[in-house]
Amino acid sequence: MATASPESLRRALFSPETVALIGASANPDKSSGRVQRYLRRHGFKGRLVLVNPERREIDGERCYGSIEEIDVPVDHAFVLVGTSRVEEAVKACVAKGAKVATILAGGFSESGQLGNDLQRRVVAAAREGGMRLLGPNSMGIVNLHAATALCANAALDVQELLPGPLGLVSQSGSVLGTMLSRGQARGIGFSKLISTGNEADLSAGEIADLLVDDPDTHAILLFLEAVRDPVHLAHMARRAQAAGKPVIAYKLGRSDAGRELATSHTGAIAGADAAADAFFREHGIARVDMIESLIELPYLMMGADLSRPRRKQVAVMTTTGGGGAMVVDQLSLRSVEALAPAPQTRECLLSLGIETAGSRLVDLTLAGTTKEHAQAALAVLLAGEESEVVIPVIGSSAQFKPELALAGVLAAAQHNARRKPIGVFLVPHADESLRILAGAGIAGFRTPETAADCVRAFLECRPPSARDAVPAVSLSSLQRILQAGGQAGSISPERASDVFRRLGIRQVASFVLRDFLMFEDLPTDLSYPLAVKVISADIQHKTEAGAVALNISGRGELELAVRKIVESALVFQPSARIDGIGLQGMEKGLAEVVLGFRRDPQIGPIVVLGAGGVLTEIYRDFATRLAPTTREEALAMIDEVKGLAPIRGYRGLPRGDLDALADAVVAMSRLALLDEPIVTEAEINPLIVKRAGEGVVAVDALVTTAEYRMDA
Amino acid sequence: MATASPESLRRALFSPETVALIGASANPDKSSGRVQRYLRRHGFKGRLVLVNPERREIDGERCYGSIEEIDVPVDHAFVLVGTSRVEEAVKACVAKGAKVATILAGGFSESGQLGNDLQRRVVAAAREGGMRLLGPNSMGIVNLHAATALCANAALDVQELLPGPLGLVSQSGSVLGTMLSRGQARGIGFSKLISTGNEADLSAGEIADLLVDDPDTHAILLFLEAVRDPVHLAHMARRAQAAGKPVIAYKLGRSDAGRELATSHTGAIAGADAAADAFFREHGIARVDMIESLIELPYLMMGADLSRPRRKQVAVMTTTGGGGAMVVDQLSLRSVEALAPAPQTRECLLSLGIETAGSRLVDLTLAGTTKEHAQAALAVLLAGEESEVVIPVIGSSAQFKPELALAGVLAAAQHNARRKPIGVFLVPHADESLRILAGAGIAGFRTPETAADCVRAFLECRPPSARDAVPAVSLSSLQRILQAGGQAGSISPERASDVFRRLGIRQVASFVLRDFLMFEDLPTDLSYPLAVKVISADIQHKTEAGAVALNISGRGELELAVRKIVESALVFQPSARIDGIGLQGMEKGLAEVVLGFRRDPQIGPIVVLGAGGVLTEIYRDFATRLAPTTREEALAMIDEVKGLAPIRGYRGLPRGDLDALADAVVAMSRLALLDEPIVTEAEINPLIVKRAGEGVVAVDALVTTAEYRMDA
Repeated sequence: MATASPESLRRALFSPETVALIGASANPDKSSGRVQRYLRRHGFKGRLVLVNPERREIDGERCYGSIEEIDVPVDHAFVLVGTSRVEEAVKACVAKGAKVATILAGGFSESGQLGNDLQRRVVAAAREGGMRLLGPNSMGIVNLHAATALCANAALDVQELLPGPLGLVSQSGSVLGTMLSRGQARGIGFSKLISTGNEADLSAGEIADLLVDDPDTHAILLFLEAVRDPVHLAHMARRAQAAGKPVIAYKLGRSDAGRELATSHTGAIAGADAAADAFFREHGIARVDMIESLIELPYLMMGADLSRPRRKQVAVMTTTGGGGAMVVDQLSLRSVEALAPAPQTRECLLSLGIETAGSRLVDLTLAGTTKEHAQAALAVLLAGEESEVVIPVIGSSAQFKPELALAGVLAAAQHNARRKPIGVFLVPHADESLRILAGAGIAGFRTPETAADCVRAFLECRPPSARDAVPAVSLSSLQRILQAGGQAGSISPERASDVFRRLGIRQVASFVLRDFLMFEDLPTDLSYPLAVKVISADIQHKTEAGAVALNISGRGELELAVRKIVESALVFQPSARIDGIGLQGMEKGLAEVVLGFRRDPQIGPIVVLGAGGVLTEIYRDFATRLAPTTREEALAMIDEVKGLAPIRGYRGLPRGDLDALADAVVAMSRLALLDEPIVTEAEINPLIVKRAGEGVVAVDALVTTAEYRMDA
Repeated sequence: MATASPESLRRALFSPETVALIGASANPDKSSGRVQRYLRRHGFKGRLVLVNPERREIDGERCYGSIEEIDVPVDHAFVLVGTSRVEEAVKACVAKGAKVATILAGGFSESGQLGNDLQRRVVAAAREGGMRLLGPNSMGIVNLHAATALCANAALDVQELLPGPLGLVSQSGSVLGTMLSRGQARGIGFSKLISTGNEADLSAGEIADLLVDDPDTHAILLFLEAVRDPVHLAHMARRAQAAGKPVIAYKLGRSDAGRELATSHTGAIAGADAAADAFFREHGIARVDMIESLIELPYLMMGADLSRPRRKQVAVMTTTGGGGAMVVDQLSLRSVEALAPAPQTRECLLSLGIETAGSRLVDLTLAGTTKEHAQAALAVLLAGEESEVVIPVIGSSAQFKPELALAGVLAAAQHNARRKPIGVFLVPHADESLRILAGAGIAGFRTPETAADCVRAFLECRPPSARDAVPAVSLSSLQRILQAGGQAGSISPERASDVFRRLGIRQVASFVLRDFLMFEDLPTDLSYPLAVKVISADIQHKTEAGAVALNISGRGELELAVRKIVESALVFQPSARIDGIGLQGMEKGLAEVVLGFRRDPQIGPIVVLGAGGVLTEIYRDFATRLAPTTREEALAMIDEVKGLAPIRGYRGLPRGDLDALADAVVAMSRLALLDEPIVTEAEINPLIVKRAGEGVVAVDALVTTAEYRMDA
């Protein structure tokens, strides 16, 4: 059967005319007993069908004995039965022609093989019947503008729901309640709340995509445990951007990277969280670090022009020194600079009697508590070119005289011709002031920390990147090299070098001397000094065997060294078979970096750049982007790695060839374009960065392939 | 005149029988007009004396025309007049025999030389008369247990004050209001609030010290802009520890270190904030990073045994997966581990029907919302040896059924035999639950971020260190070396090396060949390879002049090299006078570190250890302690510097001589013990760390002295 169109899906999911509660319970303390109550309390206007074989009625409403008995068309079925009865119920819903079923029960893919199998069968049954599924393990949905509280979350025990502009898609059912509760307490309303659970069918990305076209939703909030469906999410984020709706994400697992630190390859160093960061950055999604930022940031972004990148510069204006200083300190910790007013701004302020004296804090003193003074000062700061956001800080009056305290801010905001975002930090406990701000569509910050987190997330958020800047070059020769080796897995170092050479990354010159008395054949690109080693599968520890020599500076020395290491090797292991002598140029540069490529299981292909050596891991100092990446992003990556400061000209040190390094990053990232076989992991460690103009040279190369496609 | 005893000072400051408002205003919107209102509103029971030459009465209370006219003894005068009239008022208060005067006006030491002079005269006048001063620039004090709101902060507009166990000493007057407002909104009461202003006389440390003996104060909170009086603060913190009262600080300026990054010496890298951290650590003060932690942390620490260090291990128990996961994630970001229950705990939980399956989150599921179940599970976790803190996470029920939601926690807390701290994170907006927790003396966390910040601050807080572990060795020979040079400033490299040698830090072997044809005199400790350079004041750039040679590996090579560099130098600069040839051993080790000593202008002497090279500054990777420091702390410093991981045995790399490095840190720190002249700054860069057992060697030494004492 054909799947529903987005419009039909949106109606069935969010605005169903008929809702069926499969397994409605008479026990109001059970999750399955709550939904009926919440629908009624919050004024559901459609038809409600209860199914419970053991009851004739619940709370005065008729119960059907089975799904089969339902005699009206069902738009949205909320399946509240236990895990073991879900499959049967879903099949019955399909038979009844329901358009969407939401499944409350857990015990599916999150609990082992049996649950996984069950989930697959349930999805198959739904797909076959053209019915979409939300969950399992979903708390349901709330459409606040349509009075549809089709949801089991206890937060709906609240007396009244406050409709508003924020749409929340949450992979955690309980967090849906957290945000509703915390938002409503300060006058911040939602349009729709959706708990996506296991996302067996409908993913957070697909559901958020429905919100892009929802006229009641003006900002899309994501609470994510993992990026499960990057394709839909990316698509949604780009459409949201085009529609002028900010997308803001809180993602669990910032600390995962710590755990992955112990692994040995760069790819693996960049754990899923760094990959998620790269993903959010690429697609213009603002990522917040504090949970309340998720409801505080939208109002900062909703009116703003989202189509341009911004400088991390703000103006902070205050009537209370201590409160302002806390915000400036927190901003600075996040590399956002509270700027002293530029000359013109300063003069305008001076004409209002405000002496800023080069301070980062525009202190209005007590005079600033009058409406006119605050409005005039804020208007000047809103007009100043130097800041991207203005942050008024309001003292005790916000608690006792909220209207008066905010009058100046509200008045200035109404004449904010440049639509420069305003975010107000309230120093005292001031719930009423927070409500006034929310009512006026102005961001209010409850703490100096969320203020700084929100402003940082906003200023760091870039428009989605233009992906077509990656040059489209034929990769078929690469494909042949990768296929030549036969089975998948790590390919030989020689072939790996060949892969990178064809990508345009210079490899350190090397040569294998098969007959180790014939020095006439040395290639011309091989120049002294050289490293020399015996090639023999029989000798594991070549240094111990005396089978290595370094810093060979000329032909005579080379002949001597070769003779000596062959002798040593044979003394060490008389039976060893010697396959040749490996010669490699010893390159010197200004720095060594690690350049890696990996397919993240959630995000897909990423490219990772880190400072070389053991310190990359110790300091977790690397930059990650989705692959393939552009040259511009590659240069941004080089800027991001702190340990590369010395080759960026820090303290007058000679600059490395950053152009060549950026080219290498782009080249590495293009491994993402290959398929059959795909490259699962690749690494150059070290990649030597020489002086500006002298290029980069790869010393050691690793490539791992797989025959299957990871993005299935 | 003699100064008041602490007891008499405490009475006059906090519980005055007679308060005089000097410059009381009839305008209720002016700061000077508020104090009378606040005293009356909050039930001041003592005698109130108003002084205002222009009014006969204010609000029905008589005004005196001048201070001189006051005909009763005054305990505490609150001077509300403008800056220019403060001096005269203070003198009059002294004449009247007032014990304490608080000064509201600003415009003193914070505003240039004139203000500074004025402040000095005011202090002198008070001292002469034996009167103590609070401020200037102080908002005043509030004693909530004695209904004394002697304070101009508008937060006192609140209808009622809630007395409680927290004493707050704040260098910011406005933050005093912030904490009062935010605390009271959630049922957290204060004992005393003190705004210390410029601390011209009474410092935050001295005032906090009064709170140690205050029976109404059970925890001491500090809001600091700077550590202005470390001696009193340290003394206070140690006495508070002995009295079982936690001391908790929030300090502005975490981001200062960033600005100081640009300076060149290690000492300077460790900006004032790192020094403040070292100070707090040394004296057992818990430092929080978020402002609301200041009111959330005290209840976690108040019942706890503060006399032992703790592991960063906690148990998290929840009825709501998403809420629990947020806390675990935030804890992990701060290196606090939420542990899966140990076998015994796990079995006990299993007997309650709770399967933890090795998870870091003890998930009670919906069953955990009953009192009995929650109580039993919490009791098991409180008994488990593996955790230092238990964090129950409460879901939606905290909002709608607060008593029920917390019943289990409250019951278990009453039978908490080991006094293990409990901190509850409330997932929804739940003010009433926060009030219930505060009423029961249990820590409640409003956000997952403050939960993690508080728990981290508590677990990182150590009992004050024992300072007597530093060996007391005669330093008189050092003194002689330092004095020998004559005037203060940087001393010569040779003398600097001598200083460190006498402290027991091995110096790289070096020798000056005066007659550069006489190689017979080479000292025996000077072994090849050597670095060789021409010593000549006339040749600035020795490398350019060809006047340096490295890696000289034997006698023959040395003679050749000396001849060659002397020739080169004379070709380069024919008129140069050559004073000799400097020879220095070329030491190799596993790592290079930077070891520094500095007198921080606020904190006093500190010792700083960092990984060597440019990366120390780039990564801001250093450890700081007060000097002198103990061997134990020196070892802790070595552990703290991330970049030293390779010599700590990371990934099986050979270990460096950490014992010798610790000895060097202790030796460097002992420069703090010298006076006449004092050492203001010292640095060894690099200090080479050799393999375990082979010691450390200083290559380059710098010592700067001053004749005056900095700690005046």
